[in-house]
Amino acid sequence: MILPDILAARRRIAPYVLRTPLRRSEWLSHETGGEVFLKLESLQPTNSFKIRGAFNAAIHLSSGLGPLDFALRASFKAAGLRSSSFVQGRRSSAEAPEASRRRLHPAQLTPIITASAGNHGRALAYTGERLGFRPIVYAPETAPRSKLDAIRAHGADLRLARDYDEAERQAKAHAASGAGVWLSPFSHPDIVSGAGTIGLEILEDLPAVDAVIVPVGGGGLIGGMGIAVKAIAPHAEVVGVEVEASHPFTDGLAAGRIVPIEVGPSLADGLVGNLDPDTITFDIARRVVDRFVLVSEDDLVAGLRGLVAHEHLIAEGAGIAAIAAVLAGTIDVRGRTAAVILSGANIDSERLKGVLS
Amino acid sequence: MILPDILAARRRIAPYVLRTPLRRSEWLSHETGGEVFLKLESLQPTNSFKIRGAFNAAIHLSSGLGPLDFALRASFKAAGLRSSSFVQGRRSSAEAPEASRRRLHPAQLTPIITASAGNHGRALAYTGERLGFRPIVYAPETAPRSKLDAIRAHGADLRLARDYDEAERQAKAHAASGAGVWLSPFSHPDIVSGAGTIGLEILEDLPAVDAVIVPVGGGGLIGGMGIAVKAIAPHAEVVGVEVEASHPFTDGLAAGRIVPIEVGPSLADGLVGNLDPDTITFDIARRVVDRFVLVSEDDLVAGLRGLVAHEHLIAEGAGIAAIAAVLAGTIDVRGRTAAVILSGANIDSERLKGVLS
Repeated sequence: MILPDILAARRRIAPYVLRTPLRRSEWLSHETGGEVFLKLESLQPTNSFKIRGAFNAAIHLSSGLGPLDFALRASFKAAGLRSSSFVQGRRSSAEAPEASRRRLHPAQLTPIITASAGNHGRALAYTGERLGFRPIVYAPETAPRSKLDAIRAHGADLRLARDYDEAERQAKAHAASGAGVWLSPFSHPDIVSGAGTIGLEILEDLPAVDAVIVPVGGGGLIGGMGIAVKAIAPHAEVVGVEVEASHPFTDGLAAGRIVPIEVGPSLADGLVGNLDPDTITFDIARRVVDRFVLVSEDDLVAGLRGLVAHEHLIAEGAGIAAIAAVLAGTIDVRGRTAAVILSGANIDSERLKGVLS
Repeated sequence: MILPDILAARRRIAPYVLRTPLRRSEWLSHETGGEVFLKLESLQPTNSFKIRGAFNAAIHLSSGLGPLDFALRASFKAAGLRSSSFVQGRRSSAEAPEASRRRLHPAQLTPIITASAGNHGRALAYTGERLGFRPIVYAPETAPRSKLDAIRAHGADLRLARDYDEAERQAKAHAASGAGVWLSPFSHPDIVSGAGTIGLEILEDLPAVDAVIVPVGGGGLIGGMGIAVKAIAPHAEVVGVEVEASHPFTDGLAAGRIVPIEVGPSLADGLVGNLDPDTITFDIARRVVDRFVLVSEDDLVAGLRGLVAHEHLIAEGAGIAAIAAVLAGTIDVRGRTAAVILSGANIDSERLKGVLS
């Protein structure tokens, strides 16, 4: 992915997503001695940034020029087949059956099968409801009720697994059986480019930004944002925030390759899980991310309490990670101008009440 | 006030306020069978819509053409004097001392004295910090800590009174002594016009709106919004929502004139209080508001719980009033397109936790 992919994504998704506010945080500016701004992706439809990648992938797919090819290639690869001739066949307008099928949304004919800790699945289900297709979503049975209920409410075919890693394994196996195409929640060019549109908006609103601070799970968000930021404002530092309970990038970059990790429970349910060994986000992160830091569960709790008390906003655990790193001083923004991503707000009321107590 | 006043206000305040999102509520649309959108004024700097009127009044004041005259006139009237010659004197450029003083912000020379349940005071304090003046703010000692602390943090001169009515009485008496000019938190053309800019934004984003639903305290917000809506989209219904604990418009319109009311305690601390007997908002409301309805304390609690659980947003009691009326079915929006104002979010964490329990 390069900047033009992100510019194209922006045009594609503009009718469906919110251009979210970049709001100065008096609280964090005062606490840190920096100028701290919050990018409120929590306000998006479905309450997380994931909608940007979901619409980008689904619209690109329906144009017949993009991710379906990619997804088919990936699902053929997962099945141990070579897919190039089929992919080329789809691209040829001489292939009448394919061309006539395009009157329907391609994802109706070839279901999209995805895995998600919750937010990507919810976003793709919403996208399907708007554009007219029904994705198959594998998600952990431990995901927050509000995420799982919303996936069902938007009409997706929800299938539960023990945890995220198992959900991804089952989804890929299902796609490899030929029942549909695999769409990774992070390792896909359109998912990454969609997330990158957040970087464009930040740079338009705050051209003098010194640091962009981003929660990291599978790396789709920081990958896309890093590409945008380094292309337009290479002086700006791009910092990723992982949780102590799950930090595949920190470990992988230390080892020089993706390594399996043990994941623990976390308030940041949206961030925990292993990286797909084939993920495109690992090499992107090596190129565009300046450094990764870790936050503890206590940091997350302190961040969320402060956000509710001072900004009167709600975040989910994953959504608070970057804020928590700034508040804890793990990332020093004194004298700097920082844009911090509040990536999502899908937290159950009971859990929120527990954090506030 | 007429539409051009609101258009002028928009130009004046644009550099300082957020053009807030109008976000479709899946929750309320599903619950009501309508298309319900939330105008998120809670995202403004200082977390309430009040910043629009505060900047409009302060900037207009510093131009020497507006509310200072109005405010002086009001404070002279409160002191039992005729102010016309003084006001005309200020308007004449031949009056050298006044003209030379304008190099400073006029409010530095003639302090603005206001009363507020909390949000207007906070907004005016923030405005003063940005523009370079220090208002005197009378507020109820029972106001939420987060509102009072913020008024102090922005450097305003905060003075506490027993309740809102007493705060207003003391502020007007202070101004009448000659120490400054009285700025009502609702009964002032620039406060009303500033609030009216919300109506412009809604009509731009949702031209087909059928109903605009607004929390009502002193009537500045619904007055300004009603002027904008009735000028541009007269078919749209403008509905005001008062709380059972304090409903001066409901009672006043029934009586045909402003009548004193008994106010009770309410989660909607920002809405309770009597109307200034001279308020300009009463006649405006008669002209531009189609009807007023009441919500109970239980309605407010149900609204706030639902907002946190489904939209993952926070509102203060006053901010939830219009949402509560829609959720309770007091205003039927089935089959209609409704814009509902979420006017503010300054609620203490402890109180929020209590509501969620």
